[in-house]
Amino acid sequence: MKLATYKDGSRDGQLVVVARDLSSASFATGIATRMQQALDDWNFIAPLLQDLSVALNHGKARHAFPFDPTQCMAPLPRAYQWADGSAYVNHVELVRKARGADMPESFYGDPLMYQGGSDDFLGPCDPALFADTGWGIDFEAEVAVVTGDVPMRADPQQALEGIRLVMLANDWSLRNLIPAELAKGFGFLQSKPATAFSPVAVTPDELGDAWQGGRLHLPLQCTWNGRQVGQCDAGPEMTFHFGQLIAHLAKTRNVRAGSIVGSGTVSNKDRSKGYSCIAEQRALEMIEHGEPRTGFMQFGDVIRIEMKREQQSVFGAIEQQVLEWE
Amino acid sequence: MKLATYKDGSRDGQLVVVARDLSSASFATGIATRMQQALDDWNFIAPLLQDLSVALNHGKARHAFPFDPTQCMAPLPRAYQWADGSAYVNHVELVRKARGADMPESFYGDPLMYQGGSDDFLGPCDPALFADTGWGIDFEAEVAVVTGDVPMRADPQQALEGIRLVMLANDWSLRNLIPAELAKGFGFLQSKPATAFSPVAVTPDELGDAWQGGRLHLPLQCTWNGRQVGQCDAGPEMTFHFGQLIAHLAKTRNVRAGSIVGSGTVSNKDRSKGYSCIAEQRALEMIEHGEPRTGFMQFGDVIRIEMKREQQSVFGAIEQQVLEWE
Repeated sequence: MKLATYKDGSRDGQLVVVARDLSSASFATGIATRMQQALDDWNFIAPLLQDLSVALNHGKARHAFPFDPTQCMAPLPRAYQWADGSAYVNHVELVRKARGADMPESFYGDPLMYQGGSDDFLGPCDPALFADTGWGIDFEAEVAVVTGDVPMRADPQQALEGIRLVMLANDWSLRNLIPAELAKGFGFLQSKPATAFSPVAVTPDELGDAWQGGRLHLPLQCTWNGRQVGQCDAGPEMTFHFGQLIAHLAKTRNVRAGSIVGSGTVSNKDRSKGYSCIAEQRALEMIEHGEPRTGFMQFGDVIRIEMKREQQSVFGAIEQQVLEWE
Repeated sequence: MKLATYKDGSRDGQLVVVARDLSSASFATGIATRMQQALDDWNFIAPLLQDLSVALNHGKARHAFPFDPTQCMAPLPRAYQWADGSAYVNHVELVRKARGADMPESFYGDPLMYQGGSDDFLGPCDPALFADTGWGIDFEAEVAVVTGDVPMRADPQQALEGIRLVMLANDWSLRNLIPAELAKGFGFLQSKPATAFSPVAVTPDELGDAWQGGRLHLPLQCTWNGRQVGQCDAGPEMTFHFGQLIAHLAKTRNVRAGSIVGSGTVSNKDRSKGYSCIAEQRALEMIEHGEPRTGFMQFGDVIRIEMKREQQSVFGAIEQQVLEWE
């Protein structure tokens, strides 16, 4: 099934069930009002949502209405955890190579992951507000999962079974703030502003054979100001699958329901697939020409991130404009 | 007023108002059931809780019962944000000196802060479970605040006005996992397991003149296996006050209601005040003797963290035993 959260003026919005083809939706009234509520009590609530989903897909849901992604908040407008991996090691290798750093062998066995802020996510069509283009505004197109409760010390297989929902993320990054921040040693903070998510979050079964062993085998389209810049396959080159990422997070603590875990920038070795963040393109230019040639985003720029299966949008599109904070 | 969250088997527990002397408490039934709910709608709910608090302090609350800190969850059992500063620069300086790293001048003007996990906090008397003492188990006694909504770009003074509650934190740290994790460049993840908080969170006005300009001028007692090891004053040597820490966090994004911001390990230059984490004592030993002499915590060890004002416990005590995860 497919779920979304509609804006209603509240902090958590209203849970809606969305039809498979994203044409219609229905409020989950009488079942659950908020996404977190469904995640907190998934075994009880999910089957009820599933019944509504079936009715909706058969055109038999009462009170169905046309689905409008611009009315969506992030599926979880705020969450208790956002931990973002960097599972496409090709991306890490390129970015390091561009700045002359070698690639530790351990990076192929021990995932990179950072703890992100999760109190204020952006909806898929919300503008992204920044005070200064000098910060190096960049999109980062990713796949993300929402977990149920995963106990401390869970192994990757157990962790895989804890995945409740899959969605897309735009992990906004301020590239020019990163070097100084990482040099301080405590990870990202100011350099990772509010993240945006796709209109719709879907259960893994909805993805059919595109979902295999914790990897999503579909191309991730990135379109910047109307020009397609990325079409990377999110599946085969994901070095660590989502079960491994979640297990990494659960090594020393429980991972509780509603935690969001990200894949990091989707990246392919085949350069004809393009890029899922500008930093990767700039790294390639640095390696090839000795200097980056593609600039970061400017006020007014629009980024669209979408994933299609048989010509149908799976999660709906993230489509955000960069605007000046005033 | 003083607030706490009682265990009731649910993820968020039950909001209670606690008497100033911590002798009695009353469920906030009819006002708000959960702490986050109060924070989400503070201007409306806080005055109602305040009325109950006044009645309780005058022994006139109906249905009051003896307050029992062992029944407490963390005031926010889970939160949308936990961002922990390192505001006592003396601590940072000592730890760096012990490992032969110098202290960048910028550290006196630009706060260190890391994004922590906030999906699974520990109650004040909950055991702390670890799989391996080889990880270097350490307590970290801190002051923490809970914010209301603080908009992006707020200045330190605005940010200060966004503080709703003050409490104590025990930011458990796995010292032997830290070097490798920080070397990866993405900050703490596995090395910062679930954090614990004091039984009670209090409004700043409750602290009287001990709360001055975003600093809490009271001694923080740390007692390890019955022996007092720390009595550091949390006030004068806090290089960055809480308004500055919150403003640092808000530079590129909104900080939303229920965000928790920590001070980092409380530390004094006067060595007779002792220490608020073992790592600091070990750093001193390293500097003095060329090797650390105090070991980290073992299974069965107990750490007690408390702050008193005129012999009265302000927040109740964090008192946790280290136990082996099985």
